[in-house]
Amino acid sequence: MRIVLDAMGSDQYPVPDIAGAVMAARQWPDDEIILVGREDIIRTELQKHDTQGLQLEIVPATEVIEMDDPPAWAAKEKRRSSMHVGMGLVHTGDADAYVTAGNTGGVLAVATLYTLRRIPGVKRPALVAILPLPVGRVVALDIGANADCRPEYLRQFALMGSVYAQAVLGCDQPRVALLSNGEEPGKGNTLVKEAYSLLSKASLNFIGNVEPKEVLTGKTDVMVSDGFTGNVLIKTLEATAKMLTTLIRQEITANPITAIGGLLAKPAFNRVAQRINPSEVGGGPLLGVNGIVIVGHGRSDALAIKSAIGQARKAVQGNVVAAIRDGLAHKGKAKEKS
Amino acid sequence: MRIVLDAMGSDQYPVPDIAGAVMAARQWPDDEIILVGREDIIRTELQKHDTQGLQLEIVPATEVIEMDDPPAWAAKEKRRSSMHVGMGLVHTGDADAYVTAGNTGGVLAVATLYTLRRIPGVKRPALVAILPLPVGRVVALDIGANADCRPEYLRQFALMGSVYAQAVLGCDQPRVALLSNGEEPGKGNTLVKEAYSLLSKASLNFIGNVEPKEVLTGKTDVMVSDGFTGNVLIKTLEATAKMLTTLIRQEITANPITAIGGLLAKPAFNRVAQRINPSEVGGGPLLGVNGIVIVGHGRSDALAIKSAIGQARKAVQGNVVAAIRDGLAHKGKAKEKS
Repeated sequence: MRIVLDAMGSDQYPVPDIAGAVMAARQWPDDEIILVGREDIIRTELQKHDTQGLQLEIVPATEVIEMDDPPAWAAKEKRRSSMHVGMGLVHTGDADAYVTAGNTGGVLAVATLYTLRRIPGVKRPALVAILPLPVGRVVALDIGANADCRPEYLRQFALMGSVYAQAVLGCDQPRVALLSNGEEPGKGNTLVKEAYSLLSKASLNFIGNVEPKEVLTGKTDVMVSDGFTGNVLIKTLEATAKMLTTLIRQEITANPITAIGGLLAKPAFNRVAQRINPSEVGGGPLLGVNGIVIVGHGRSDALAIKSAIGQARKAVQGNVVAAIRDGLAHKGKAKEKS
Repeated sequence: MRIVLDAMGSDQYPVPDIAGAVMAARQWPDDEIILVGREDIIRTELQKHDTQGLQLEIVPATEVIEMDDPPAWAAKEKRRSSMHVGMGLVHTGDADAYVTAGNTGGVLAVATLYTLRRIPGVKRPALVAILPLPVGRVVALDIGANADCRPEYLRQFALMGSVYAQAVLGCDQPRVALLSNGEEPGKGNTLVKEAYSLLSKASLNFIGNVEPKEVLTGKTDVMVSDGFTGNVLIKTLEATAKMLTTLIRQEITANPITAIGGLLAKPAFNRVAQRINPSEVGGGPLLGVNGIVIVGHGRSDALAIKSAIGQARKAVQGNVVAAIRDGLAHKGKAKEKS
């Protein structure tokens, strides 16, 4: 297997990116990691690591799409970027998957408009978050690619999310639910109500509406929403966790007795952090484009990059693109017809 | 001042409701608390308290809108409910405000269709959450009354939220922001983009878009959204906080050393809980109806009921209904015209 890693991806590129690639090359020695980006920078960074015997290759790309570049502009103007070159390798069949912690809007634009393009029949690609929860992992989509959606898009998101949960997370018959403001069938905005009706007729394990608490307590394997609401959910989850941990740290360290308590309890806090550690997941796929693309957080560390590469491997093994193509042809249609 | 409390409101009615009313009557002895609901139940419960010298009155209502009653049906069929009678007293001027921890959909239907009705010019009433955050309080609306919104509704929500933040929370020139999937002006779904344009022209202290993390870190005093997205945000916040606290408790108690640490750190955890305690807020108003209505959580305890009554007092003192009426007439219109 050949996996392309965008060495110019994360906020701190190339440090965590290269370190993660080295970890991955060591963990999966049969696979090849292709580092794409500015050759001088990559070579300098690689020298800090012991890479003997590792299958690491460099493919140069002279331009970089930076985090604060306007996505549409950058995708159009920086045609020699690591994103164009990297996804180009997947497009031509020279690699099996592309992994980046770079500008999400940039990935979306380069993938859909300039390189991989959509799987035939897919209305809109969707960005996925794999939520690392105490109860297990939940596939949430769309979390930001499409701020405005039609019911038909949500039906396709449900199908693609279900395929991914099966192929990559190993869920058998993944439960699929719509994010809503109440569990009862009549709840939701117009979009959700119409999508509910479409999903009820699809050949999916559709379990109805879920509220955020059902998502976090593992009542579903796949959570479907428009990209605006999904984005708000993900960001509220992150912001709340950050607010609470900051507050707990503040209050514990404000007093010597509680500070001692905090020290004794530290292993427990570490286990909590471990159980919901986004770096163990690494990133989420951009589903619906004609190739495997995994997008990590800009703040990815080396472990997150390695995990994202691991996820790309599973997506390749699970033949996710073909499964979505077949699914669009056969499943997700009205039950009567399947 | 005369404040009506729905004695048949909370999930555990009448226990926390009556206890909270007694606390309020004791704290604000110049005001009168009118308990509305089934007289026998109220009298029996009141006997458990020392009510000597307190201004507590009972107004009977023979029916109860229960938590699981379908709102539209219950509002139409149970015309002698504590909601109809209670809001009726506000409508006729026999009381200044109505407080309930009951069925939210029921409150909305009884208020808008059968008793108080809308303030002239208000397109849609909005349900407000007053978020109790470490940085202070944030007025969030709509959090559930309107799943589908037009830009004009959001403009009115912004105005009503601003009036409330000023009158009740004492904010001078409250900062008003739109909840979005990015801070930049062009971000958002179509609704947010169109509302952004309207708000830019309104006579409000409009600061633009905010993401969830800006809401939680106190970058705005008022957060405006459609009722679907607002509901998802509130519920994600609650669910994440619950998930984290459960997880921390589990991990701390899983080992004797960390359990001792947890005991020593307990005062710090208590301060954390105190600083974000929803019971100190009690509830949020239903803004846009022609009278003051405060809606508490079904799981309200006595403190929450007392706090909700306290909030109703401030809303009366701040003359919120008249301020919204005036605001609709003068503010929130295009700056050129004001």
